[in-house]
Amino acid sequence: MNPVLVEAWRGDAIESEHTGSIAVLDAGGAVLLALGDIDRPVFPRSAVKALQALPLVESGAAERLALSDEELALACASHNGEPLHVRTALSMLAKAGADVDMLECGAHWPYHEPSVRAMAARGETPTPLNNNCSGKHAGFVCLACALMGWNDGGVDLRRYVKGYVKPDHPVMREVSEALHASTGFDLSRAPRGTDGCSIPTYGIPLRQLALAFARFGTGVGLREGHARAARRLREAVAKAPFMVGGSDRMDSAVMQRLGERVFCKVGAEGMYCAALPQRGLGVAIKISDGNNARAAEVVMAAAIESLVTLSAEEAEFMDGFSAVRLKNWNGIEVGALRASAPLRRALAARSSS
Amino acid sequence: MNPVLVEAWRGDAIESEHTGSIAVLDAGGAVLLALGDIDRPVFPRSAVKALQALPLVESGAAERLALSDEELALACASHNGEPLHVRTALSMLAKAGADVDMLECGAHWPYHEPSVRAMAARGETPTPLNNNCSGKHAGFVCLACALMGWNDGGVDLRRYVKGYVKPDHPVMREVSEALHASTGFDLSRAPRGTDGCSIPTYGIPLRQLALAFARFGTGVGLREGHARAARRLREAVAKAPFMVGGSDRMDSAVMQRLGERVFCKVGAEGMYCAALPQRGLGVAIKISDGNNARAAEVVMAAAIESLVTLSAEEAEFMDGFSAVRLKNWNGIEVGALRASAPLRRALAARSSS
Repeated sequence: MNPVLVEAWRGDAIESEHTGSIAVLDAGGAVLLALGDIDRPVFPRSAVKALQALPLVESGAAERLALSDEELALACASHNGEPLHVRTALSMLAKAGADVDMLECGAHWPYHEPSVRAMAARGETPTPLNNNCSGKHAGFVCLACALMGWNDGGVDLRRYVKGYVKPDHPVMREVSEALHASTGFDLSRAPRGTDGCSIPTYGIPLRQLALAFARFGTGVGLREGHARAARRLREAVAKAPFMVGGSDRMDSAVMQRLGERVFCKVGAEGMYCAALPQRGLGVAIKISDGNNARAAEVVMAAAIESLVTLSAEEAEFMDGFSAVRLKNWNGIEVGALRASAPLRRALAARSSS
Repeated sequence: MNPVLVEAWRGDAIESEHTGSIAVLDAGGAVLLALGDIDRPVFPRSAVKALQALPLVESGAAERLALSDEELALACASHNGEPLHVRTALSMLAKAGADVDMLECGAHWPYHEPSVRAMAARGETPTPLNNNCSGKHAGFVCLACALMGWNDGGVDLRRYVKGYVKPDHPVMREVSEALHASTGFDLSRAPRGTDGCSIPTYGIPLRQLALAFARFGTGVGLREGHARAARRLREAVAKAPFMVGGSDRMDSAVMQRLGERVFCKVGAEGMYCAALPQRGLGVAIKISDGNNARAAEVVMAAAIESLVTLSAEEAEFMDGFSAVRLKNWNGIEVGALRASAPLRRALAARSSS
């Protein structure tokens, strides 16, 4: 069984705890840190959206459609569905000559509660543009334009993209190939599931996911087209980090603060991956029970704090994510989230400082 | 480490899993079933609201204020903050001659998302009445009326109840005494924390919690006043189960369907307690990682299914909670929540059938 990585304290006792595993590798495949089982395949979910966006750039679609930093960042996002995210997804579709009803991700209310209430106050209901994956899907539609050879006319595109979420559609074959190429893991023998937005998700070990993100952050070990695409996506996200998450989201806040030193991306069910280009490292985390907000985030924040060279102010900023004070409805401090002793010891031994 | 109790499947693999512990005892203290550590103190949180409501009835306050079934059920509730819950809490306060601003639970948006959106559409913001604990707190104010000897006049009550959430206030001393008397656990040596609604929460082992609910369901082992109060509360909840949770809440749905055969109550951080009066049993569950919606609920549903005599239709109804089909944003079935093999084996060995 995996070790405890995060403790949730209340008063003078540990109330709950989260087990999990973490792998930190360099682009050559050397393991800098491993806690828990890093060789069992896990579904990476949305933590690999940046890898799934590699074909969007490599294919030339991003350049030909003149996708902006904001739009490329949104293609890597699990966004809050805030108005700016919605407008940006719509702009991507417009550049591709596509309509909202071509998106096959489904609709859900925004993750961002104030946006939900604002929509309700305006009498609105959610569309696929509010779906946290709408940027990724808009990117798939843009990729389709390239794969179909830039045929003119909306009718052809509509026919071509239909069913793009299916594993055997040319779009999804290209996306899965990028995942295979970057992780080096044979997806044909991987466990397979369907993701929240209906595309396939493949079980991949943390070892291969951390390797892929070390490659994503350095270009080392990627083919030329993917290396260039990775650099372009990292630059875009560093310039428009709000697009990747949104208000009150750790991904956006951390990348806003730390710039190109960190590319990090959360995924459902306790997944978190990051590239730390400065140190040439990739990080992959899975919380066994699937908890994101308070477990995967604490582990990733603790990892960034140890592995990235930070100023005192930046370290204090990261403390807000790695040692969280829990308050109740009256604002009274009632507990805390903390990285466990085994995790802190393992990270301290690999510290950048 | 505690055993896996719930598996979350996606496609052909286990994506996440939840460890935890469960105790099933009779009112004499005999252990019918124990998985995991049942002797480590855990914070029961809202799972013991019914025990905390015993003084409201024993003191005579419920009778003198003519509290209805709905109001008594709300005193045991972690409700959704739906309009009916809000009105009922307000009615309790009115009977006590109290005002909303005497509630010390804090305010939060309703748990029930459609109610949040409806409030936002009306331009409303949440009050303490929307707090899931408002019925419990309104019950504390009613109890205060009795403890202060039914002095007349709102001014005296306001002065008397102020600070009722503090451990040393007469109201909270009475509430803690009921918890001590029903569980038999010495709270003076228990871990202590502050709950979401600001009252103290004490660490109590699952063994003692299951014992308390076996007593709550049978009266056996409770003092006369508590036994009568327990019966009154169980009757009230069986008649008004919507009050305990609300729309789309397992507690309400199960008690609506199974009536007085089950009294069950969820608590924060993966807690779940139940009395099964028909079989004279008490059940107490803690999910190690604190997950309620998909872990504690699955374990409790599996326990009820095994331990309570059910018709085929009722068993099928409970299957909806113990073997949950997971769907994505497009309504496609992508996975399932299942009780683990060790849990199913342990329950099958103690089955009622």
